[in-house]
Amino acid sequence: MDNGIHEECGVFGVYGVPDAARITYYGLHSLQHRGQEGCGIVCLDGGELKCIKGEGLVTEVFDSGKLDSLKGDMAIGHVRYSTTGASCLDNVQPFVFHHKTGDFALAHNGNLVNSAVLRRYLESRGSLFQTSSDSEILAHLIRKDSKESHLPRIEAIKEALNMIEGAFAFLILTENRIYACRDKYGLRPLSLGRLGNGYVVSSETCAIEAVGGEFIRDIEPGEIVCIDHHGLRCNKYSDYCHRFMCAMEYIYFARPDSDIEGCNVHNFRKLSGRYLYEEAPVEADIVVGVPDSSLSAAMGYAEAAGIPNEMGLVKNKYIARTFIQPSQELRENGVMMKLSAVRSIVGGKRVVLIDDSVVRGTTSKRIVKMLRKAGAKEVHLRIASPQLIRPCFYGVDISTVEELFCASRNLEQVRKELGVDSVHFLSKEALYNAGHRSEFCLACFTGDYPTDLYQEELK
Amino acid sequence: MDNGIHEECGVFGVYGVPDAARITYYGLHSLQHRGQEGCGIVCLDGGELKCIKGEGLVTEVFDSGKLDSLKGDMAIGHVRYSTTGASCLDNVQPFVFHHKTGDFALAHNGNLVNSAVLRRYLESRGSLFQTSSDSEILAHLIRKDSKESHLPRIEAIKEALNMIEGAFAFLILTENRIYACRDKYGLRPLSLGRLGNGYVVSSETCAIEAVGGEFIRDIEPGEIVCIDHHGLRCNKYSDYCHRFMCAMEYIYFARPDSDIEGCNVHNFRKLSGRYLYEEAPVEADIVVGVPDSSLSAAMGYAEAAGIPNEMGLVKNKYIARTFIQPSQELRENGVMMKLSAVRSIVGGKRVVLIDDSVVRGTTSKRIVKMLRKAGAKEVHLRIASPQLIRPCFYGVDISTVEELFCASRNLEQVRKELGVDSVHFLSKEALYNAGHRSEFCLACFTGDYPTDLYQEELK
Amino acid sequence: MDNGIHEECGVFGVYGVPDAARITYYGLHSLQHRGQEGCGIVCLDGGELKCIKGEGLVTEVFDSGKLDSLKGDMAIGHVRYSTTGASCLDNVQPFVFHHKTGDFALAHNGNLVNSAVLRRYLESRGSLFQTSSDSEILAHLIRKDSKESHLPRIEAIKEALNMIEGAFAFLILTENRIYACRDKYGLRPLSLGRLGNGYVVSSETCAIEAVGGEFIRDIEPGEIVCIDHHGLRCNKYSDYCHRFMCAMEYIYFARPDSDIEGCNVHNFRKLSGRYLYEEAPVEADIVVGVPDSSLSAAMGYAEAAGIPNEMGLVKNKYIARTFIQPSQELRENGVMMKLSAVRSIVGGKRVVLIDDSVVRGTTSKRIVKMLRKAGAKEVHLRIASPQLIRPCFYGVDISTVEELFCASRNLEQVRKELGVDSVHFLSKEALYNAGHRSEFCLACFTGDYPTDLYQEELK
Amino acid sequence: MDNGIHEECGVFGVYGVPDAARITYYGLHSLQHRGQEGCGIVCLDGGELKCIKGEGLVTEVFDSGKLDSLKGDMAIGHVRYSTTGASCLDNVQPFVFHHKTGDFALAHNGNLVNSAVLRRYLESRGSLFQTSSDSEILAHLIRKDSKESHLPRIEAIKEALNMIEGAFAFLILTENRIYACRDKYGLRPLSLGRLGNGYVVSSETCAIEAVGGEFIRDIEPGEIVCIDHHGLRCNKYSDYCHRFMCAMEYIYFARPDSDIEGCNVHNFRKLSGRYLYEEAPVEADIVVGVPDSSLSAAMGYAEAAGIPNEMGLVKNKYIARTFIQPSQELRENGVMMKLSAVRSIVGGKRVVLIDDSVVRGTTSKRIVKMLRKAGAKEVHLRIASPQLIRPCFYGVDISTVEELFCASRNLEQVRKELGVDSVHFLSKEALYNAGHRSEFCLACFTGDYPTDLYQEELK
Repeated sequence: MDNGIHEECGVFGVYGVPDAARITYYGLHSLQHRGQEGCGIVCLDGGELKCIKGEGLVTEVFDSGKLDSLKGDMAIGHVRYSTTGASCLDNVQPFVFHHKTGDFALAHNGNLVNSAVLRRYLESRGSLFQTSSDSEILAHLIRKDSKESHLPRIEAIKEALNMIEGAFAFLILTENRIYACRDKYGLRPLSLGRLGNGYVVSSETCAIEAVGGEFIRDIEPGEIVCIDHHGLRCNKYSDYCHRFMCAMEYIYFARPDSDIEGCNVHNFRKLSGRYLYEEAPVEADIVVGVPDSSLSAAMGYAEAAGIPNEMGLVKNKYIARTFIQPSQELRENGVMMKLSAVRSIVGGKRVVLIDDSVVRGTTSKRIVKMLRKAGAKEVHLRIASPQLIRPCFYGVDISTVEELFCASRNLEQVRKELGVDSVHFLSKEALYNAGHRSEFCLACFTGDYPTDLYQEELK
Repeated sequence: MDNGIHEECGVFGVYGVPDAARITYYGLHSLQHRGQEGCGIVCLDGGELKCIKGEGLVTEVFDSGKLDSLKGDMAIGHVRYSTTGASCLDNVQPFVFHHKTGDFALAHNGNLVNSAVLRRYLESRGSLFQTSSDSEILAHLIRKDSKESHLPRIEAIKEALNMIEGAFAFLILTENRIYACRDKYGLRPLSLGRLGNGYVVSSETCAIEAVGGEFIRDIEPGEIVCIDHHGLRCNKYSDYCHRFMCAMEYIYFARPDSDIEGCNVHNFRKLSGRYLYEEAPVEADIVVGVPDSSLSAAMGYAEAAGIPNEMGLVKNKYIARTFIQPSQELRENGVMMKLSAVRSIVGGKRVVLIDDSVVRGTTSKRIVKMLRKAGAKEVHLRIASPQLIRPCFYGVDISTVEELFCASRNLEQVRKELGVDSVHFLSKEALYNAGHRSEFCLACFTGDYPTDLYQEELK
Repeated sequence: MDNGIHEECGVFGVYGVPDAARITYYGLHSLQHRGQEGCGIVCLDGGELKCIKGEGLVTEVFDSGKLDSLKGDMAIGHVRYSTTGASCLDNVQPFVFHHKTGDFALAHNGNLVNSAVLRRYLESRGSLFQTSSDSEILAHLIRKDSKESHLPRIEAIKEALNMIEGAFAFLILTENRIYACRDKYGLRPLSLGRLGNGYVVSSETCAIEAVGGEFIRDIEPGEIVCIDHHGLRCNKYSDYCHRFMCAMEYIYFARPDSDIEGCNVHNFRKLSGRYLYEEAPVEADIVVGVPDSSLSAAMGYAEAAGIPNEMGLVKNKYIARTFIQPSQELRENGVMMKLSAVRSIVGGKRVVLIDDSVVRGTTSKRIVKMLRKAGAKEVHLRIASPQLIRPCFYGVDISTVEELFCASRNLEQVRKELGVDSVHFLSKEALYNAGHRSEFCLACFTGDYPTDLYQEELK
Repeated sequence: MDNGIHEECGVFGVYGVPDAARITYYGLHSLQHRGQEGCGIVCLDGGELKCIKGEGLVTEVFDSGKLDSLKGDMAIGHVRYSTTGASCLDNVQPFVFHHKTGDFALAHNGNLVNSAVLRRYLESRGSLFQTSSDSEILAHLIRKDSKESHLPRIEAIKEALNMIEGAFAFLILTENRIYACRDKYGLRPLSLGRLGNGYVVSSETCAIEAVGGEFIRDIEPGEIVCIDHHGLRCNKYSDYCHRFMCAMEYIYFARPDSDIEGCNVHNFRKLSGRYLYEEAPVEADIVVGVPDSSLSAAMGYAEAAGIPNEMGLVKNKYIARTFIQPSQELRENGVMMKLSAVRSIVGGKRVVLIDDSVVRGTTSKRIVKMLRKAGAKEVHLRIASPQLIRPCFYGVDISTVEELFCASRNLEQVRKELGVDSVHFLSKEALYNAGHRSEFCLACFTGDYPTDLYQEELK
C-alpha cells in the first residue's frame, strides 16, 4: 500500500493492576503499528495524575527510570501517528486537565466532524484551547457545566458524548476510575479484557493478548463503560444502532492477530485474497504479496488459485526514522531500500501482485517497475479493497481527493499508468463477506459518509 | 550560596528582526543562568505560531535543524528553572493558546499570589486548565470576555493584569505584535532594547548586549509596552508607584554584566563587599570569594580592606546534569567535585570568606570544612546579604522557613554551627546604598511583603 | 529459531563509484540482519583512509553529517554481530593499519581456527595486537615481511591467506585498490557486482541489488579478486577445490532475496519445507511458520501438503535494543512481547509448526506453549534443518555443546520436552537437494569439520 | 588567550583503591580542562583489562551503568584534547595491547620528537601500527624484544623510555601494577598521591585533591615509579638532570588550584600580574582580566597598581559543543556569545586589559573592539607571557609559525593591529621569578628547544 494513508492513533488503559504504567507500556508497544510519531502514559500515582510523553516510538520515549517513576494501578496511554498541526508536543496525548472538581486525563483515537462548531461554542462560553486537537474538545464539554450542577460525572460525560459527532474511542482517567467509550457509529474499535484482578481496554485485542489479558468483549457503539472499585458498569449514551466499523481497520491498519468485532484480521485478509481470485482469476505462475500488510491476502489468493505464494518482494526490517534517504539521483540509479524484488523468484514469471490498496499510486508504480526490472514476464495487480476515491473524516489520514490515484482514473487508465498487464479491485460485496457482516464504513470507497459532515469540514 | 534557592525563569522577545527565533536562541543562551531545566521558543511563521520546547539547556533542546524550522521576524522565548509539579512538559513555556479571536503565546517570569482564587473564579466561568502553572491564568483572564465585547486587546490585557497580584514579567506574542509588561510592584526585571530596525525585550540587559542590541530603558512597574508596526506604544495599567525590585536579583540571580534599573550588578556586589568590610572589618591575610556569584563582593572587600583577594576556592567548570554524583561514602572520604579549596593558597592563612547568602547552611558548612582541611588558620565568614528568614512568594524558590538556616538561630549559633571564627551578614542599609535606591523587596530578609499574600497561599 | 545462534558479520565494498561511503551505507543497511551490534565504514578520501565506526545499527552510527564527511569513490564497510570480548570499540571493524609501505583497512566475516598459533608466531616476530579479533591477524601476516622484500602486495596477501585456516570473506582497502577474497573451503559467501563504472562486493547479493548494482558472480573459494583502475584481476591463491558453504547461511542467516552460489535462499527454504512434508507428513489443519526466518519453509510445506498456511504467530516489528524487557513475573503472567499466537487462527486447530532450527530449545518450548494456550489442539513441530549437535568454529556463534538441546536428547526426548505431538528434523539429503548441490559444511549437524581444528581451539 | 593553542591531554591512575574506575572518573573530571574531545578508562577487572572510551566529555562518555561495569581496584584514564588525525576513535586513549607475555594498557600526555624514526625502525622489525598516535610507539618498543629475553618488565620499559625523545607523562597498567613515568626533561607534569591504602597518579594535583587524596610528591624527570603490592618502587631510567617544565602549564593550561613542582598555579599567575605592573605600569582606572585564565594575573596587577580589579568582561558559562554558532552576519551585527564587555563597568574608563598570551591575535582584537564599543576610553594590553614566536613540538598544539601573530610583527605593529593604546609582554625573567625556578621550557617564546628536534619533525 502507498504511504499516503495512515491511522491516527491507538489507546490502551489498565485498571486495578499493580504497575499499571508498565503494563500500559507493553500494551502500547503492541499498538505501535497504529502510530509511531509520539506516545504518552498517564498514571494515577498517589491520587495524582502523573504523565510522561514524547515524540517517537514507545521504546524511544520511555526508559526504565521513567517507567519506574510512574507508580499505581491505574493508567492510560496513547500512541499517535502524526504530530502535524502540532505546536510542540502539545498534541501528543494523553492530555491532562486540572479542575477544582478533580483532575482527569484523556486519550483519543479518531476524529470529530463537528469540532469547529464545538470550538466556537465553547470559546463563546469561556474556553481557551491549548491544542489544535479535536481531543481537547471533549474535555471542555465535560467540564462546561461543572460549576452549576452536581451531575454525577458519568452524566456529564454522556451529555458531552452526545454533543460530539464523528469517530472516536475515548479513554478517560480520573482519580478513581477509567471511562471507555466508543462513538455510536462504531467507527473505531475498542476492546475490553480482564487482567489479574483488574481490567484492560485497548484499541486492538492483540495488545490485550500481549499483556497476558483475557478478551471479554468489544465496547459497543454508543456505549460507555465505567471501571472502578465496583467493577464494570456499562451504559449506552445513545440508542443509535448501526455498526459502521471502518473497513480500513481490517484492510490495512490492524495487526493480523487482532480480532475486531468477532472477526480475525488475518482471516479477513486471507478471505479477501480468496475473493480476489474468485472475482478476477488470471493465468499466472506465482503470487507475490507486498509485505507486510498484503501477505495474508496473498496466501488466500494463492490457495484459491492453486499456484505458489512466493516471497518475491522482501522488506528491509531495519528502516528507522534516522535512516538517511537515498537522494533522487541514487533512487534513479536503482537504490531501493525499503523493498526489493527478488530476481531469482520473479524472473521469467507471470506474477499476481497482491496489494491492500492504492492511494497515490506512486508506490504501486515503483513496485511494478521493480518486478519488471527483476524479470517478471507479466504483472497482474490484485488490490484487496475497492478503489479509494473519497477522503476520510474519521481519523484516517488519506491524501486529498486530488491525490487519490483512482478518484480521477478509470480502470484502464489505472492499469496503464501502473504499468500492469491486468488490474482488479476487490468488490464491496467481498468485503462484507470477508468480514461476515452487513455493515461497514466504506465512505472512502463510496462517499457514503455515515455521519453528517458539517459543511465547514468539507472546505 | 547554598543550592536551596533558585530563580524560576527568564524571558526574551524579538520584534521586527529577520530570523527572530535564532536571535531568541542567543538571547535565551545569555539568560541560561536564570533557568536550566527547560526552554522554548515560539515564533510567528507565516501568520502561524510555531513552537519548539523541551527539557534541558538551550544547547540541548535546539539544534540547527529545529532552529531553521522557526522562521519569521517575531518570536518570544523562555528558560525555566524547575519543572516541579509539572505533568510532562506541560509546564515548559512559552504556552500557546488557540482562540477564534486569534492565537497567542505567553512567557512568564515570576509568581502570582492570588492564583488559587483566580483559578476558582475562572473555572466557575468555564475555564479548564492544562497546567499547574500560574502563567496559564493570565491567558484565561485575557480571553474571558472575548465573546461579549470588541475591546481592543490591549484593554483586555490591562484588565487581566489588574486582576493578578504578584511578581511577573510577561511577554505575549500575537499574530501582529508583542506585549511586554511588568507587575506594578516592579518585583521582576524586564528591559527593552533596539536591534536593527526592530526591538528586543529581555529579563536582563546582558542578553540585549549579547545579541548586539542597544539598551533603551527598563519596562516600568505597572507598564505594558506594545510593539507592532507602529513602533512602541507605552501604557500604564496601574498608578501604583513603588519600585520593589527583588534584592536577590542583585545579590545572586542576575549576571554581573547586567544592569537592573540603572545599576550594574557587578558594581552592586562589589559595593556590598566594600560595605561588608566597613561593617565588620577583621584582621586577616586573604579574602576568598565563593565562585562564581561572590567573586565581585570579594573584590570589593579586598580592595576596601587592602588585603589580597585570592582564588582560594576553585570551581569545576564541567559539572553537567549527567555528572555521576559521588556516593555518600566517597564524599565522606573527601571526594569534592564542584568546589575545591587550594591548600597552597589558604594554608596557614587567616581567611575572610565571602559568600552571597546562607540558605540551608549545608554548603557553607562544607566550604568552611574544606578551607580548614586545606590549612586555613582562621575563617571569617562575611555574607553579602542579610539573614534569610522568610519564604518568597514571588518566584524565588527558597526553601521553607523550617529549612532556612538563619530563621531559627541567633548570630552566635550561626557562627558556631558553621564553624567559623566570626560571621557577619550585610545590613539592609548597605543593600540600599549599594543599589543607590530607597526601595527594594526584602521580604525574604524581613517578612515585609509588598503585596497582599492571600491567606490560602500561606498554608 | 532460538536466540542462541548468530552469524558474526557482513562485509560490503565499493570501487570506482562516486560517494562510495554512501553506497556502502546502503549496502550495510541491507546486510544489517547479519549483525546489529556495531558497524563501520572506511573510505579513501584524498589518498587518506577515513573511518567512522560505532556500536549499534547502521542508522544509529551514521547520520547525514558523518556520511558527508566520508568522500571518495572507494570504501569498505562492516556490520558485526557481537562485541563480546571486545575491549571498547576496538573490535568493531573495519580495522585501519598504518605502515610505511602504505596504510590499509580490512573487514572480515568469519572465524579462523589457527589464530592462537598465528598470534604466538607473530608476537614472537614483534607483533603487538590491539584487539582480540581474528581479523587483526591477517594484517600482521600481510605486513610481516614487508621490510625485506619488494613482493607485489598481492603476493604478500596470497602468502598470508595461505597461512590462515578457517572461514572468511575478507575485504582489504588500500590507497588504490580493493582486494576481495574467500577462504578456500568456501565457507562464507562473497559476491561481486557491477555498479555504474565501478564494482561492488558484498556478503550477500541482496545488498548488490539494493544499491542498484548488477550481480556478476560469486567470488570463488580460494580466490582473491583485485579491483583497481585496471578493472578486475582474478587469482586463485589455493588449488583446494571443495565448496563447503555453511548450510546455516541458507537455513537461517541470509535474507530470502539473496542468491548464494546460484541458489536463491527463499527457494531453498521453500523446498526444505516441501521436503519436510515429504519426509514427515502429518494430518493437520493449518501450517504456521515462526516469523520471519521460517515463513518460506512454511509456504513450501503448506503447498506440498495442500493445507492452508496461516499467520498463526505474529511478530512485533518494533522490538528495539532499548525495549524494556518484561520482568520474570510479568512473563509468567503471560506478557509476550516479541511473538504472539493468534487464538482465532490456531484455536481448535491441528497445527504444523515450522521452525528453522532448534538451538537451546527454550524459544521452541515457549512458542509451543503459546500455541497450546491459544487453543491449538495438536502441535506438530517440523524443523527445516537436522539436529544441531556440535559447535561451529567458523564464525557462527552457536552455544556450546552443553547448551545444544539436541546434542543430549533422542528424538522422543526432544518431542516430549518441547511438548509437541510429533517432531521431525529435516534430513541432510534434503538439504543437498534443496540447495541443488553435493557439498556443504554441515559440521554443526554432523561434527565433520572441513578444516583441521587445531587442538587449542577445542579446549 | 586565543583559541589557537591547546594542551593535548591529561592522565590519571589509581592503584589499590576499591572502585578504582569510579575514582578515575572523578579524577578525569577534574582534569577535564586538559582535554574535552575524548576520554577513556581502563581497569583491571578480574585479571582482565576492561576499557570504555568515547568522544566527548567525561560526563558524556560515561553513565552510571558503564561505570558500574568497570570493577576492580586498579585503573588508568585519559582525557584528550584533539582527535585530529584520528581514524575513528582509534586515537582515543588509553590504548590496550594484547600480548602473550601479558596484556597492558597505556595512557600518554605529551608528544615525541623522534616518532617518525622509531616508527620506521619498529616497522622494519615487524610492527604494524593501528593509530597515528605517538603513544602507540612506546608499546611496541616495550614489547619489541619480549620474545628473546626474560628481562623483568621494568627493564624493558626503561630501555624503551630511553629510546623515545620528547615530552611525556606515561601511565602503564599491567595485570598487577601501574608504572608512572616522566620524560627526562621534565616537560610534562605528573604527580603522585596517597588515597586510602593505595595510590593515585595525576597530571595535576587538583585531581588528587578532588578525589580526597593526599599529595606525596611529583614524579621526577627521568623517573619511573612502579606501584604494586610491594608499594612504591622508584627508579631513574636517565641521569639527565634538568627541569624544563613547560611554562605554558603555569601560564595557561593548569587549573589555578594545582601545584606544579612545588609552585601553585594561581600564585604563579598572580605574581606574573604583579611583575607585569612593575615592568610596564600605566596610568589607568581599572584592571580587567580575560576570564577565566587571566583572572589571577589581573588580581596581581590590580593589587600592585593599587587600582580596582573589575569584572569588565563576563564569560557565558553555558557554551557547549552543541552550541549553534552565530553566522558571520550575526557576528558582524554584534552577536557575542562567549564573552561580553560590560558597558557600565568599562564605559569612560582607562582599562588595563590582562590576557595570558597572544597566539593568532584574532581574539585579542575582538576583545579590544568589544571594550572600545562598550565605551572604554583607553585600553592598555598587558600579556602575562612573552611573545609566542615558535612552534611547540612537545604536545602543545600551537598554530604554525605563520599563524603566530607576534612571530612576524614588532611591538609597535602588534600594538597598532590589536588596536590598543599600549602593549607589554611579560619578560622571561619574570616567569622565572614567578615560578621561583631557574629552568623552564620556553621554546615557544625563544626557539631554544631542550631536545634534539630530528630534522624530519621540522618539515
